[in-house]
Amino acid sequence: MGKATREKLTGEKRSEALATLDGWEERKDRDAISKTYLFEDFAAAFDWMARVATEAEKMNHHPEWLNVWNRVEVTLSSHDAGGLTGRDIELAGRMDALTEAG
Amino acid sequence: MGKATREKLTGEKRSEALATLDGWEERKDRDAISKTYLFEDFAAAFDWMARVATEAEKMNHHPEWLNVWNRVEVTLSSHDAGGLTGRDIELAGRMDALTEAG
Repeated sequence: MGKATREKLTGEKRSEALATLDGWEERKDRDAISKTYLFEDFAAAFDWMARVATEAEKMNHHPEWLNVWNRVEVTLSSHDAGGLTGRDIELAGRMDALTEAG
Repeated sequence: MGKATREKLTGEKRSEALATLDGWEERKDRDAISKTYLFEDFAAAFDWMARVATEAEKMNHHPEWLNVWNRVEVTLSSHDAGGLTGRDIELAGRMDALTEAG
């Protein structure tokens, strides 16, 4: 996270950063990325959320997320920068990694 | 929770049940109730969510909730009954109680 930029990602840097992610989509209504995760049940979904919450606190960068039973819809954007930054890419990658850490 | 009805709440029973709750509003777009909780920060919000998650698992009845930093927007409805039931009222009461349990 130390190296994750706090500036809005644009142009080539943005394309390169997005290319490192799996299954995340750029939102059309705002400068943010979203992904929907599906788990076996509520317990599995919330267990993952709890592990993500710990990472988010470490990074001091937090997701917007909607949980409905086994589904978690996540949106990432950097409010202070008014758009997508390297910190969002970093958190997205950690969230993906934590689905495998179970 | 053993006594919480699994039937849709209507008429007087519904009014009486809703009157036991504080700050919950009936949704206009579907048969459900919603409330927005505000906490000091993300850690406090998620700590509360974790305690609610344990209760939800015990009841086998789960909220729909959106968390954005210190804010948690909750919607409760009973999918199996297709609307608001005593179980939603029960969970709503437990969620409120847990804000005080700190």
